[in-house]
Amino acid sequence: MLMSYTAAVAGCTGYAGGEILRLLAGHPQIEIGALTAGSNAGTVLGEHHPNLISLYDRRVGETTAEHLAGHDVVFLALPHGASAALAAQLPAETLVIDCGADHRLTSAERWNAFYGTPYAGSWPYGLPEMPGQRELLKGARRVAVCGCYVATSTLGLLPAITGGLVDGHDITIAAASGTSGGGRSPKPNLLGSETAGSVSAYGVGGTHRHIPEIVQNLEALGAESPSISFTPLLAPMQRGILAVITAPVDPSVTPEQVRQAYLEAYVDEPFVQVLPEGVWPASQSVLGSNSVVVNATVDRAAGRLVAVAVLDNLTKGTAGSAVQSMNLALGLDETTGLSTIGVAP
Amino acid sequence: MLMSYTAAVAGCTGYAGGEILRLLAGHPQIEIGALTAGSNAGTVLGEHHPNLISLYDRRVGETTAEHLAGHDVVFLALPHGASAALAAQLPAETLVIDCGADHRLTSAERWNAFYGTPYAGSWPYGLPEMPGQRELLKGARRVAVCGCYVATSTLGLLPAITGGLVDGHDITIAAASGTSGGGRSPKPNLLGSETAGSVSAYGVGGTHRHIPEIVQNLEALGAESPSISFTPLLAPMQRGILAVITAPVDPSVTPEQVRQAYLEAYVDEPFVQVLPEGVWPASQSVLGSNSVVVNATVDRAAGRLVAVAVLDNLTKGTAGSAVQSMNLALGLDETTGLSTIGVAP
Amino acid sequence: MLMSYTAAVAGCTGYAGGEILRLLAGHPQIEIGALTAGSNAGTVLGEHHPNLISLYDRRVGETTAEHLAGHDVVFLALPHGASAALAAQLPAETLVIDCGADHRLTSAERWNAFYGTPYAGSWPYGLPEMPGQRELLKGARRVAVCGCYVATSTLGLLPAITGGLVDGHDITIAAASGTSGGGRSPKPNLLGSETAGSVSAYGVGGTHRHIPEIVQNLEALGAESPSISFTPLLAPMQRGILAVITAPVDPSVTPEQVRQAYLEAYVDEPFVQVLPEGVWPASQSVLGSNSVVVNATVDRAAGRLVAVAVLDNLTKGTAGSAVQSMNLALGLDETTGLSTIGVAP
Amino acid sequence: MLMSYTAAVAGCTGYAGGEILRLLAGHPQIEIGALTAGSNAGTVLGEHHPNLISLYDRRVGETTAEHLAGHDVVFLALPHGASAALAAQLPAETLVIDCGADHRLTSAERWNAFYGTPYAGSWPYGLPEMPGQRELLKGARRVAVCGCYVATSTLGLLPAITGGLVDGHDITIAAASGTSGGGRSPKPNLLGSETAGSVSAYGVGGTHRHIPEIVQNLEALGAESPSISFTPLLAPMQRGILAVITAPVDPSVTPEQVRQAYLEAYVDEPFVQVLPEGVWPASQSVLGSNSVVVNATVDRAAGRLVAVAVLDNLTKGTAGSAVQSMNLALGLDETTGLSTIGVAP
Repeated sequence: MLMSYTAAVAGCTGYAGGEILRLLAGHPQIEIGALTAGSNAGTVLGEHHPNLISLYDRRVGETTAEHLAGHDVVFLALPHGASAALAAQLPAETLVIDCGADHRLTSAERWNAFYGTPYAGSWPYGLPEMPGQRELLKGARRVAVCGCYVATSTLGLLPAITGGLVDGHDITIAAASGTSGGGRSPKPNLLGSETAGSVSAYGVGGTHRHIPEIVQNLEALGAESPSISFTPLLAPMQRGILAVITAPVDPSVTPEQVRQAYLEAYVDEPFVQVLPEGVWPASQSVLGSNSVVVNATVDRAAGRLVAVAVLDNLTKGTAGSAVQSMNLALGLDETTGLSTIGVAP
Repeated sequence: MLMSYTAAVAGCTGYAGGEILRLLAGHPQIEIGALTAGSNAGTVLGEHHPNLISLYDRRVGETTAEHLAGHDVVFLALPHGASAALAAQLPAETLVIDCGADHRLTSAERWNAFYGTPYAGSWPYGLPEMPGQRELLKGARRVAVCGCYVATSTLGLLPAITGGLVDGHDITIAAASGTSGGGRSPKPNLLGSETAGSVSAYGVGGTHRHIPEIVQNLEALGAESPSISFTPLLAPMQRGILAVITAPVDPSVTPEQVRQAYLEAYVDEPFVQVLPEGVWPASQSVLGSNSVVVNATVDRAAGRLVAVAVLDNLTKGTAGSAVQSMNLALGLDETTGLSTIGVAP
Repeated sequence: MLMSYTAAVAGCTGYAGGEILRLLAGHPQIEIGALTAGSNAGTVLGEHHPNLISLYDRRVGETTAEHLAGHDVVFLALPHGASAALAAQLPAETLVIDCGADHRLTSAERWNAFYGTPYAGSWPYGLPEMPGQRELLKGARRVAVCGCYVATSTLGLLPAITGGLVDGHDITIAAASGTSGGGRSPKPNLLGSETAGSVSAYGVGGTHRHIPEIVQNLEALGAESPSISFTPLLAPMQRGILAVITAPVDPSVTPEQVRQAYLEAYVDEPFVQVLPEGVWPASQSVLGSNSVVVNATVDRAAGRLVAVAVLDNLTKGTAGSAVQSMNLALGLDETTGLSTIGVAP
Repeated sequence: MLMSYTAAVAGCTGYAGGEILRLLAGHPQIEIGALTAGSNAGTVLGEHHPNLISLYDRRVGETTAEHLAGHDVVFLALPHGASAALAAQLPAETLVIDCGADHRLTSAERWNAFYGTPYAGSWPYGLPEMPGQRELLKGARRVAVCGCYVATSTLGLLPAITGGLVDGHDITIAAASGTSGGGRSPKPNLLGSETAGSVSAYGVGGTHRHIPEIVQNLEALGAESPSISFTPLLAPMQRGILAVITAPVDPSVTPEQVRQAYLEAYVDEPFVQVLPEGVWPASQSVLGSNSVVVNATVDRAAGRLVAVAVLDNLTKGTAGSAVQSMNLALGLDETTGLSTIGVAP
């Protein structure tokens, strides 16, 4: 008989909240408890997530500490700035997993440079593939889940840094995301008539809020003074991120060395796959799964290592890493309730 | 009374050929003559391009010098390696416009490094926005139209180089293309079930054939030893290319300087638009038009200039530049038959 | 030297308004005058329609009779219910072309059954392919442009009725529209994350407001008591409508008779094409054009004639028919500024 | 300890085969054995289905009875006409589940009217929601899985017929399918450049091979002389079918009666959901799940019942019904390894 835990989801009517519920509904050791939201409180979940058939008629409550109390796990899928106050009202023994940015950055200075709300401190970081992080997540009761572009970029570059092939300076990243990364608040630029058939750039020139988080991760991997040119793109698809990452590399480094570094770094990771030589990732292949798929090589004429990584922004980029972190925090098998297999085509 | 010219299109059943015909059908000074193809000879054009309603019933002939003879202009939209032999059989006074790669590179060495077929020499280059090129195209009788990624990348970076802000070394380009760039030969990876909902990378690590052409252009713009890390992506859309271009820049360079360089470089260009500050291009906005839309800024923390450029790979990236070049070669107004306005949404 | 007319567009920041402007910008006899909007007044057009490069910097005024006065033509692309009051303030000699529904229905009863606003009377109907309508539009100074589903359904069925093959009773229509038909007001169900990758039904069971307009058209074609089951679908594309239309047919009717009726009905229509036998329309083929493409046959086992029609909802379904009607009203060549050729692929 | 069975998949490199494997990989009582294919024999599975990460390196064998022998279950995902001969070589005690059409029709006459290959007889029919079918599948050793359009159409109409509201004559069905329904053989009309952004019709006029299968099902539900006008559409999405079904209905029938009939018919069905009143299905909501989502009403002005049903053509339309049938045949819980929850957005 497996141990069972109760979980509440705050912000359940957004895309991250819906994905958390999709995963929890298939998790053998979780019983779904309170579902809460802001302006959608009082509605029925199926209005927002008609795909969640088994939860269709569940009533959405208001996001308050009262409604969230009494659960073993509370997932927060809230706008930036809303998590800290709410988490402070939840018991210390409740496992609180924040899918927002509020508790990701360890540097108040960096927070202040990119976010407008007060700095709320940092929590154990919900990207278990970061060296040492898995151990920190075991037994944790507060978890700050990684950003979606951050997970893609970090895991796409990790073996090159830990393997000593690149030092983290002058990195360039161009990353294309599906529209669900833009959330569910209706904005004109996210209308299907605008997003279909079009790739567009936004946040160009070093302004995207995921930049300081990537820098922090590269530092944690050993990079001394990382510098990153990061350009996000919106692509005409619902889910998925593909990141193209380049970094200066010594002319002596061979594609084989790069390949070896990637294979070694991820040999034991259940959710990271290195593709065969010369095969490059497509975002579709990881849809709905918790997988990250990567490959890398060297462009010797350009003097750069080039890595490409894909994940599903809602799964491994948010809700999947959240559930993976929950599993570690609760002492469950890390992979419980998570699939490595994407829905394709 | 306007002067009128006859034009034939070889390779009319492919996507480039169809787009040439779409533009020629709206060109007030062109009369469409012979349409030829390889294995599709003998079929009716409407089977391949049902959108070309006014040409629906035109019979497709075989691609031979005989069928193409007797026209003022012959467009070649053929597989790589097929243009040279055919062009050699056409009279010197016939304007031959090659949309393939065969006559783009001025260096046999670079050709041999990237292409398997024998080097065929170079022709005047069909990207009129290149400094000095417009004059060379006037009266030309052989034109090699630019590559689609090449036009996007070159025009995205041009003002930074001619303005002396970047020197062409250590450029990174990640460019997402619609699927029509992959052509019309049915390949499994180009099936809609594969391309829809997915961004994928290919030709990673410095292997794409457009790289030597970009390098050649940067040299022509004054860069001394350009080096480029170029990564092409396939995006789930039919048309359009968006390129993210970064280049090392001196810390003293300001976004205003960059902006000024771009505005000045393109002030007189009929088909290049620089967006307002902080507004970034979307590929949809140029669909079916001959426009290139760009913007650029500086990411000072990263030490890089970042430019983003979009165009329609079939129009400005191929057939539009072909018609623009034809206009110049024939002494017509350069913009005849070409629109700056895209079909959106 | 061609005569030139000035045109204003009210509601210029929506999708219909943008498409009107796209067409007018390429119309050789129209000079674009005032551009007005509601809540978007004061902004710059390029913020809303970055594709309209030549009009990018035009300032949007407020939609008032004052701003619209003094033009030869005024296009109204307004929410339902807003046209009548505004039109009443415009001089009788101004050509007012309403792209909304306000003046389409000749029956107050039908208006009241489907719309909440007061009945505003009817104007000459902007679907020139309706028998007799072309003559009525010549010299008209008020035009009510057809609805997009209505144009598709009517022109898909017209030859079957005027040819005496079907009598208009028990028609079924299932029609899939691109998302631009839903307009530009940001609603959650029109977000790209919702519309991409999904076909959905809405307004099922006889509630869609285009039904009485189709009925009215079928009556005008000679149907005695038309009855229509109409089901609209939202398809994951930006533009286009495809309608599947079935109607009971006498068992003696042959596919050849049907084909003949369609060919004859449209032999002189510049914007309607009947496809070859056995070839069925794809909405992409008419993108951005003013074409309607149809085909029809008989399913003898089912006892039904089946017709399929496609058009671009923003062009022939709205702005194209508006410009076509304008041409007729002003005495210009009916096809001026309009293309039969779609942008494909 | 759960009993475990071995399963082989013939035709594993196509879309149906890939979906069977995706489901089997998550099935707790199945061990995946031989994977076979035709021309793809000798390749590695990951080349064809990079999403099937846990099976990436599995070598694909040739489709022969020898390779398929020795498994408890053999799934056939083969071209039409290839199943019978192969199945005849497999032991009678092997559970053979044919995802193709070969053994669906009980009438040789109907088979001959729609298929070119010799009639191969019929097997128990893999659509457990058909009345009485569930019992027939229990213990079966040969199963013919339903067609994808057929499952959608049948389950969309079933309650109206079994509830005595419609009698099956003069049914009209327009059904839009994602492109994966067209299979993986590269054909020009299935290229992403053709399918993206376009809805198209095909097989119009009563020629689609799923028609006799729908007729057969309606007869099995009690319809006396069903007649169906069926029009299939290709929609720009990878997966999913939405069917709009109309049927003549007595004027006295109310929407409430219709609703009640649907609720009652499906109250115990684990994979069929009736939506709330006035809410209509979107195909995205069932992506990757085994769910069918339906709703229905009456259009009294048109005199027709209108039902809309969606399912994922690869899951409930093929591989999901196959696994559901396997579960029944093996005596497992019918829902094992199948999810009701779709991946959305």
